Amino acid sequence: MTSSYLKIHPWKIIEEGFDKTRVKSSESIFSLGNGAMGQRANFEETYTGETFQGSYVGGVYYPDKTRVGWWKNGYPEYFAKVLNAPNWIGIDICVNNTVLDLNQCKSVLNFRRELDMNSGIYTRSFEVQIDSNCKIGVKVERFLSMDEDALGIINYQINALEGTCDLSVESYIEGKITNQDSNWDDPFWNHLSSSHSDNLMILKSQTSKTAFDVATFAQTHLINPQGEMVSDFESSSKDFRINQSKKQNLQEGEQCAILKFGGYINGMNHQPETFESIAQHLVEQARTKGIETLIEDQKIAWSTIWEISDIEIYGDDAAQQAIRFNIFQLNQTYNGKNSKLNIGPKGFTGEKYGGSTYWDTEAYCLPFYMATKHGEVGRNLLKYRYDQLDKAIENAEKLGFDKGAALYPMVTMNGEECHNEWEITFEEIHRNGAIAFAIYNYERYTGDMGYIPEMGLEVLIGIARFWAQRVNYSTHQKAYVILGVTGPNEYENNVNNNWYTNYIAQWCLTYAASQKEKIAVEHPQRWSEISRKLNWEDKEDQHWKTIADQMYFPKHPTQNLFLQQDGFLDKNLEPAFSIDPKERPINQNWSWDRILRSPFIKQADVLQGFYLFESYFDRESLAKHFDFYEPLTVHESSLSPCIHAVLAARLDKIEKAYELYLQTSRLDLDDYNKEVEEGLHITSMAGTWMSIVEGFGGLRIRNGEVHIDPKLPKAWDSFSFKINFRGIIIKVHVSKEKVTVDRSNPELIVYCNGKSLDALGNEKDF
Amino acid sequence: MTSSYLKIHPWKIIEEGFDKTRVKSSESIFSLGNGAMGQRANFEETYTGETFQGSYVGGVYYPDKTRVGWWKNGYPEYFAKVLNAPNWIGIDICVNNTVLDLNQCKSVLNFRRELDMNSGIYTRSFEVQIDSNCKIGVKVERFLSMDEDALGIINYQINALEGTCDLSVESYIEGKITNQDSNWDDPFWNHLSSSHSDNLMILKSQTSKTAFDVATFAQTHLINPQGEMVSDFESSSKDFRINQSKKQNLQEGEQCAILKFGGYINGMNHQPETFESIAQHLVEQARTKGIETLIEDQKIAWSTIWEISDIEIYGDDAAQQAIRFNIFQLNQTYNGKNSKLNIGPKGFTGEKYGGSTYWDTEAYCLPFYMATKHGEVGRNLLKYRYDQLDKAIENAEKLGFDKGAALYPMVTMNGEECHNEWEITFEEIHRNGAIAFAIYNYERYTGDMGYIPEMGLEVLIGIARFWAQRVNYSTHQKAYVILGVTGPNEYENNVNNNWYTNYIAQWCLTYAASQKEKIAVEHPQRWSEISRKLNWEDKEDQHWKTIADQMYFPKHPTQNLFLQQDGFLDKNLEPAFSIDPKERPINQNWSWDRILRSPFIKQADVLQGFYLFESYFDRESLAKHFDFYEPLTVHESSLSPCIHAVLAARLDKIEKAYELYLQTSRLDLDDYNKEVEEGLHITSMAGTWMSIVEGFGGLRIRNGEVHIDPKLPKAWDSFSFKINFRGIIIKVHVSKEKVTVDRSNPELIVYCNGKSLDALGNEKDF
Repeated sequence: MTSSYLKIHPWKIIEEGFDKTRVKSSESIFSLGNGAMGQRANFEETYTGETFQGSYVGGVYYPDKTRVGWWKNGYPEYFAKVLNAPNWIGIDICVNNTVLDLNQCKSVLNFRRELDMNSGIYTRSFEVQIDSNCKIGVKVERFLSMDEDALGIINYQINALEGTCDLSVESYIEGKITNQDSNWDDPFWNHLSSSHSDNLMILKSQTSKTAFDVATFAQTHLINPQGEMVSDFESSSKDFRINQSKKQNLQEGEQCAILKFGGYINGMNHQPETFESIAQHLVEQARTKGIETLIEDQKIAWSTIWEISDIEIYGDDAAQQAIRFNIFQLNQTYNGKNSKLNIGPKGFTGEKYGGSTYWDTEAYCLPFYMATKHGEVGRNLLKYRYDQLDKAIENAEKLGFDKGAALYPMVTMNGEECHNEWEITFEEIHRNGAIAFAIYNYERYTGDMGYIPEMGLEVLIGIARFWAQRVNYSTHQKAYVILGVTGPNEYENNVNNNWYTNYIAQWCLTYAASQKEKIAVEHPQRWSEISRKLNWEDKEDQHWKTIADQMYFPKHPTQNLFLQQDGFLDKNLEPAFSIDPKERPINQNWSWDRILRSPFIKQADVLQGFYLFESYFDRESLAKHFDFYEPLTVHESSLSPCIHAVLAARLDKIEKAYELYLQTSRLDLDDYNKEVEEGLHITSMAGTWMSIVEGFGGLRIRNGEVHIDPKLPKAWDSFSFKINFRGIIIKVHVSKEKVTVDRSNPELIVYCNGKSLDALGNEKDF
Repeated sequence: MTSSYLKIHPWKIIEEGFDKTRVKSSESIFSLGNGAMGQRANFEETYTGETFQGSYVGGVYYPDKTRVGWWKNGYPEYFAKVLNAPNWIGIDICVNNTVLDLNQCKSVLNFRRELDMNSGIYTRSFEVQIDSNCKIGVKVERFLSMDEDALGIINYQINALEGTCDLSVESYIEGKITNQDSNWDDPFWNHLSSSHSDNLMILKSQTSKTAFDVATFAQTHLINPQGEMVSDFESSSKDFRINQSKKQNLQEGEQCAILKFGGYINGMNHQPETFESIAQHLVEQARTKGIETLIEDQKIAWSTIWEISDIEIYGDDAAQQAIRFNIFQLNQTYNGKNSKLNIGPKGFTGEKYGGSTYWDTEAYCLPFYMATKHGEVGRNLLKYRYDQLDKAIENAEKLGFDKGAALYPMVTMNGEECHNEWEITFEEIHRNGAIAFAIYNYERYTGDMGYIPEMGLEVLIGIARFWAQRVNYSTHQKAYVILGVTGPNEYENNVNNNWYTNYIAQWCLTYAASQKEKIAVEHPQRWSEISRKLNWEDKEDQHWKTIADQMYFPKHPTQNLFLQQDGFLDKNLEPAFSIDPKERPINQNWSWDRILRSPFIKQADVLQGFYLFESYFDRESLAKHFDFYEPLTVHESSLSPCIHAVLAARLDKIEKAYELYLQTSRLDLDDYNKEVEEGLHITSMAGTWMSIVEGFGGLRIRNGEVHIDPKLPKAWDSFSFKINFRGIIIKVHVSKEKVTVDRSNPELIVYCNGKSLDALGNEKDF
């Protein structure tokens, strides 16, 4: 395990001591979000040291003009960028005419950050010697309300530890902000108006080009040393910075607090003319409740989340802390309430990767949200893609496909492709398969038989049409081939017959044909609507089946082994451990051509297929492929260790699974890839959840029934996880001695290693 | 043939009539150059219409910071850009207070451009009605001296055709110029000083970053209606624009001329402190000679060039004009005097492609310059690469190679790579082979046995070491393979075992080993120097031979046919004529993935190998490969038709060869690719020369002997070409009746179809 400066604690993330070189990393780690907005853990007060400022509003993006060296036909005109939004958290503090700035202070004592994942409250505290006569203590509590999408709360407490303090407080909203990730330094925001009245600051802004309306608002109060709330701040504004200022004297031993309510009203959810009244309502409500009640509400909201999603690990606090951190961040990023939103790879913790939606959503995130929330959340994730089907068809048309073939984009905000590397944008087409698989997976898990006739079938047909046009018949192989693709392993580009891609294409064609047949029989009227709408041609599905039957797969000539792609055996098949550790990660040290011709695998590729389609392969075959491919795998994608952990657990390679689990779960806490300052790896966190629930827990849904196959790593005394299966909460507890299963509906049968269990872990006969 | 607005004439390029939409195209077509500098045919006087201004100084470039969407390890930091240099040709004319501007004139009559390729003089003439009382005629002669690298001449004659003219003339140098091809709009030039004294304007400038010193100079005289030269211009300068102004009245029927001498002194050849005196000397010399003598000198210089390089085609003026245009432009671009210069793909006619040196030089240009100039020119082209060997080794090191392996860059100015598309920069490594082949080809043609021991062997060893490290042994194929390359056909990327690349790699290894052995025996002392310098390891060459012996080549399983790369037969092998003409060229209409998985070939790939190494393959095999690959070829590289023309001629497909010849030779005149406004395709012009001399002429050098195998296209009555073979000028004339060979040394034997010929075309016995 990589060493970390963070303390191990089962429920908390703790940093102690002030170190300027850690500020940007901690800004990522201690990020806050509530599914609708989020922010990095930037300081409220002035900080002149190195920092990466970030505050984000869900669904709001800017189409940044594409930048390339060499343009290729088919590239999109723009790349959707996550936008740093106006800053509402700013509180400048001046003590005895000295600006409080941790970068300038002679010494910062007892600096501490604590993120309490149980309550969702982030606390920062420190002491500072202002001058020879004056020392203050500061404690800041901050959280984004899980109940009110648009509301955040800051409780900034100042204590005069030594001497007298003349405090000067300037709480503000700042419109002049920039994006780190900008191609041409365009201004991303146009500010329309700034106002301050009735103690409410409000900055109305609109994004350039996309014209998203957003109001940034805040209200500041002071709790004086007498414990009274006073709100008579002096307001002013200039150049889209709005200030609320106040002075306060503190005698030694006295304290005061600045209470700030603020956030963003998002035009996607509200009419701009209502922004003011909504903001007014939110701050008034918050002021009335008061900080204690607001904190209480936040604890309740999080306890509801944990109630159904917590995973407990006994005997291994590092592992315990890590899984909770992952679950916590996933819940901060997406709550499933709004089908217009999705799960960005960095959530609300950074700008990198732009966009919001990758195949990560379907392949990695869907199972987590289905199992730890209610069915509607999974449906919303699927509906997001259904709503973008027309754009996926347009996207395919740009690449020369027709007749309703749909290619979902690699990265998107509104359904349009906004990624521009030909080898990925045009060739990493397996993503289309993950979207079809998610439909199957959703129906399998939720039992919601209504989704496919209502929406899913149209998506399946669009995807099947794409594959049917994308293959070509090789007279040489006497089979259908898929040329020029990039598989999940992005360390290979433009290969022929990537096994995973061919396999998922075959599966999509077969599945779409079977679902078409089913809907035509079970919902004839709906089918007649769909077939008219989609200009269904007679026997399209027959052709799909023909292609599926005659799909080519690259195979080892003598061993019973699928090859990752044509020509794979021509590589110099050295194991990854032979790479000089100084040259790891190879993507930071090797030129691209060297990576491409090497045998090294970035993330599960053939094994991704074995993961998704495990029921089609026997254990022996899985073991053979795992033993062949895993040693070649460098796990340089955050999405890699989790899938391998699940497979290793299935193969009873428990300690290998445990090692991979630690790598995936503590990726950000231990900063394995030396890049946590850019933000957290949100989507892979769902993979971490999988590695416990599907890996060590062995959870599978087969024929509408729940199966588990639990395995306990040596380092753990026991562990437990919960899932919501079709409205029934199941808690599985696995100890060295036995497996216990609690069910909110005792009628539900849970199979352990194929045998049904009672609540005490005893096998049960029917 | 594509229709052209240019008139057909055996020696001249003629445009008649003024059409604003043609201005940019004609600026390319009528470009001038003298090997050291060059310029597009921009108007001297004000022109407010669409224009692409360009004036270039050989060897002077700017390292423009690389722009990419997604950075890959190994990319160079910059791309060398050809620089638009300060404008010295400008002459603003005002007539009766109206600015002369062909874009604003009500009518432009009798507009005509004529490029006389025989004399190298470009003439432009037109008449303009200035106002109801005044009409003028203008005739401008312009040329860049072939004798004086730095000198250009403009003779701008104005005739008062109707009414009286009050002329106001402002001849200037303008420093404020821009590049079309700029990544970040950096300023490419820093101007150091501008001065005007003794009637000499001089602007001293330095390129940013590269610090090339260049002085732009000019001097203006007026030949008044009395025929007297007057030079009392009023001078001024502001913001790095220097002006020389004068007024002149013309009565109806009178004429005057503005005589301007100007150009660039290049700091690569002269010390900056001498710039002024050199410029002063040049203009003084020109003034003394006078325009008639200067024109006479220019004619003499060009007649010397034509004397040895002209190709005559009788009975087909379009073909005649085209080949002369190609030869003319090649001579304008490069004269072989300076081994620091090379042949940019657009020469001095545009900015596109940046850099100056591609593998085009070795694979396409070298044969032309060797055969139409003297031996030193070929040697200079080779020395250019020898001088850059250290950079080629550094370049290979950046990509992970070591021990003196050399990879020559895809594009360069000073030896450093400055191209950044991974699929080309890192993978189009066959270029290394062309550099080795050029050494072989040079020795074969010139008989200069001194070059290899002196310089060539070091280059051959660096290249062989690269190949020896770049291959890997496939236990599957039981052979050495080369994975992840792009062949000459850039419509395939990252393929395995591109046949051409494997073949040229094998050839390089064998050739380098044989040359090492030869030099070690014949020049033991030199070999001992080289082996010390290069840290030669015992038996390196044995290893090279082992690799060469065990090289893998992709083959058709049943036919006797080499495959372009592994997996080629899996493609849908439709012929190119099946593509909808509306979708041609495919590189402007298809997305990149579609091009990649299609079978369509951009330029000769397997056939490039058959061209270079024809003696290793029999005619039957060539025919088989030509018939397989040519129908798949879309010829969307300017370098494609010429190679196919040579091969078609060899196969007696004369009319196919003729069709391809027209496509290559009139590429720019007929603007096949609708892009001539960006500049001319200079390097492919050498290919055009090949298609006649090696194609219809069948010229080959075998064992130090000259062989021809002439074939006459139906459309031609006869044709002739000349070559300088080891100091002997050979003129071959081919008519319907017979082949005649004239030799400056009658002792030289020339073989026609394997039989020696006398000068009258009769076979001769020894």
